[in-house]
Amino acid sequence: MESNTRFLKRHIDIGPLFTDLYELTMAAAYIKSHLNERATFSLFIRGFPHRRNYYVAAGLEDVLLELQNLSFSASDLAFLKSTGYFDDQFLTYLKDFRFSGDIHAVPEGTVFFAEEPILEVSAPLIEAQVIETFLLNTIGFQTLIATKAARCIHAARGRTLIDFSLRRTQGIDAGMKVARSTYLTGFAATSNVLAGKVYGIPISGTMAHSFVQAFPNEQAAFRAYAAVFPEKSVFLIDTYDTLEGARQAVRVAKEMRTDGAALIGIRLDSGDMVRQSRQVRRILDQAGLSDVKIFASSGFDEYSLARTIDQGAAIDAFGVGTKVGVSADAPYVDIVYKLVRYADRNVRKLSPGKQTLAGQKQVYRVLDSDGRYKADFIGIRHEDPQPGVPVLISVMQNGRILGELPSLDSITKVFRNNFENLKEQFKKLDNARAYPVHITAQLAELQNLTKMP
Amino acid sequence: MESNTRFLKRHIDIGPLFTDLYELTMAAAYIKSHLNERATFSLFIRGFPHRRNYYVAAGLEDVLLELQNLSFSASDLAFLKSTGYFDDQFLTYLKDFRFSGDIHAVPEGTVFFAEEPILEVSAPLIEAQVIETFLLNTIGFQTLIATKAARCIHAARGRTLIDFSLRRTQGIDAGMKVARSTYLTGFAATSNVLAGKVYGIPISGTMAHSFVQAFPNEQAAFRAYAAVFPEKSVFLIDTYDTLEGARQAVRVAKEMRTDGAALIGIRLDSGDMVRQSRQVRRILDQAGLSDVKIFASSGFDEYSLARTIDQGAAIDAFGVGTKVGVSADAPYVDIVYKLVRYADRNVRKLSPGKQTLAGQKQVYRVLDSDGRYKADFIGIRHEDPQPGVPVLISVMQNGRILGELPSLDSITKVFRNNFENLKEQFKKLDNARAYPVHITAQLAELQNLTKMP
Repeated sequence: MESNTRFLKRHIDIGPLFTDLYELTMAAAYIKSHLNERATFSLFIRGFPHRRNYYVAAGLEDVLLELQNLSFSASDLAFLKSTGYFDDQFLTYLKDFRFSGDIHAVPEGTVFFAEEPILEVSAPLIEAQVIETFLLNTIGFQTLIATKAARCIHAARGRTLIDFSLRRTQGIDAGMKVARSTYLTGFAATSNVLAGKVYGIPISGTMAHSFVQAFPNEQAAFRAYAAVFPEKSVFLIDTYDTLEGARQAVRVAKEMRTDGAALIGIRLDSGDMVRQSRQVRRILDQAGLSDVKIFASSGFDEYSLARTIDQGAAIDAFGVGTKVGVSADAPYVDIVYKLVRYADRNVRKLSPGKQTLAGQKQVYRVLDSDGRYKADFIGIRHEDPQPGVPVLISVMQNGRILGELPSLDSITKVFRNNFENLKEQFKKLDNARAYPVHITAQLAELQNLTKMP
Repeated sequence: MESNTRFLKRHIDIGPLFTDLYELTMAAAYIKSHLNERATFSLFIRGFPHRRNYYVAAGLEDVLLELQNLSFSASDLAFLKSTGYFDDQFLTYLKDFRFSGDIHAVPEGTVFFAEEPILEVSAPLIEAQVIETFLLNTIGFQTLIATKAARCIHAARGRTLIDFSLRRTQGIDAGMKVARSTYLTGFAATSNVLAGKVYGIPISGTMAHSFVQAFPNEQAAFRAYAAVFPEKSVFLIDTYDTLEGARQAVRVAKEMRTDGAALIGIRLDSGDMVRQSRQVRRILDQAGLSDVKIFASSGFDEYSLARTIDQGAAIDAFGVGTKVGVSADAPYVDIVYKLVRYADRNVRKLSPGKQTLAGQKQVYRVLDSDGRYKADFIGIRHEDPQPGVPVLISVMQNGRILGELPSLDSITKVFRNNFENLKEQFKKLDNARAYPVHITAQLAELQNLTKMP
């Protein structure tokens, strides 16, 4: 697909200079020290932020596509030379740089927990090091949003959710990734047209207050819209007075019916959603328009979704925006990428509060007899016997992606399956029980064996 | 500059599909209704989030570059056709679409306040409407970060700040814009190498714990680094034990001195920053290394910067990361774009809690005799006599950028000048006084004259 390629070039294949300077200065020192043996880095999230109890993995596709094509352009090298940091020996090394490593990772859409490795890179030390910043940024952000979105899906109890966040995401790339990360958890659509084009996500939209204002009155605005979108109209009814707006919508909806068209819904965007939605539902029902749906948008997140539904709002679909698009109550995760093995030696870090587990690892998930998740074990990569189902799989070997990248819809299925198997007690918005994550005896033993310098 | 153009293509010239669907469906309805007279939209931020008391404008450069080149590609049009929303008449209109409007805006780096218009677009209704999402996203995010960064600059009281946020920003574009938005408020450098290349921002970096771990011991790691960067080394000393790390650094620093080199500094990245920095300072001073600086990084934001400095930390430079890169305590602003005039008629919206001021506006700033800011007046665009210095200027006419875009360094000067003229009482992190913003009699009068539909 031409368009897709163009988008990837613009937004994902951003090149190896999207990195912290120290990744490159360390690489230069490694070259000089002839220190470039095989290393393994482990990527995981420390702890849970505010009220979180699980994570949903996202971002792997971007990582794999970028790594498979990573190289320094002539202008990248010219810039690096101009900084005065790097000598010609190192720049020559970078000229031929390619990522040739192996990656194990949890598939996108997988539910996982704090401290569990979700991606491990094994490669010559320098290759594994210089990709750190990009990996953390990409996996961290998309996982953050997929997690927030999953909480909304849970709170919405089957009601339709639509991503309306584009105007308030933290930049252009974020706007694209929020559309993708929310869709993979079960959002039905996005308002982001470019995400429709690039990712094939269904797009959805209504009208703005400015549209209503541009006409002499609401009725004229609704009629004009219905004339162009006889089967796709949702009228915004709160520009002046919501209940009066509902009555105007009813009038136009009846005209539409006469013309063989059908109003899809009306939208509320301000005020008391519970009370107004019920009043508007009554107006619609009394007019014989019980098939006209009520859309609502107004700063929703998982908490207000749950509350609004609990209080009996007559809302069929929610436009979910800003607070989900930036994960407002927890706008970052403490995602880290740590050296766990170098030159056949397992290594760990002992800085206060920042300890790491040495060694190449695997997460093993223990299932109940009905397939639901009981507990996870963080173990060494090849335990025998395995204490559960391995969660990380091999996704890249020698710098090449293994197999086909999963489609977005198949990722959505992975998520749905995972989420169904996570019991309610671990998903609750409040007072959720901590999901049990243990360390296997073999991994614990390996920590004791790990020599300190 | 080739590299710059390439970057803009990748990250800024993202095209008109980066928009909410409703911008395009409304446009289609306007076309059908022959409703495309001149409109003015006003962009402003409602209120202040948590603890904010002022804003710093950023993002205008991206807006102007994008608007000057906005057009629908053949593949954009093919995609829109495939959605089934749009007929050929509208697609033909889009084929020749260009932005031909006028823009008034506050220059980047300007300090401004809630409710003040900071950008006004006057153009045929459709042109002004379809750019809404992009404008809000771009100005909103960069202003959010510049504001957070300004608070850090204020809290740091002259100490050096460096942007270390790249690994935790909300996506790729955010990583670039955070480097730019923090630099324009006075950050000294960024760790983001691509921002160095694209924006010419100084780049800075030290080393990671993994670097120290890849060597048999700290001394070997420090020596190897110093051999490659004899004039640019900052040693990370907390991988195992901070004070012992400091002593190892001293040993290598003395060797460097013998070789005619000089250690720039050491970095602390964990633990009690106040206590450790003072202990390390003592170790360095006692070794005759009082010129070696202490860098610190560990989740800093304006609050912890102020606290750490208040408590007497011996820290010369701070690496500021995640919490600033996502504006963690307030990760979005309530930025809106409202129709205020259409076809020579001033318009306003009356939805509960979402009222707008009709008419084309200007912000007038009243200065003290010493040039410091006393109060602002939101007025109509051309008041006579002017109640103060106009803050918005004309930046685009008939779709063309007026004059040269200011350099990033000149934007930094605009900010510095603005920030100096904002009195301390309005800048304090806690209990800051609300800066007085009034509405002029002429603007108030215009509201009364504005006919409701």
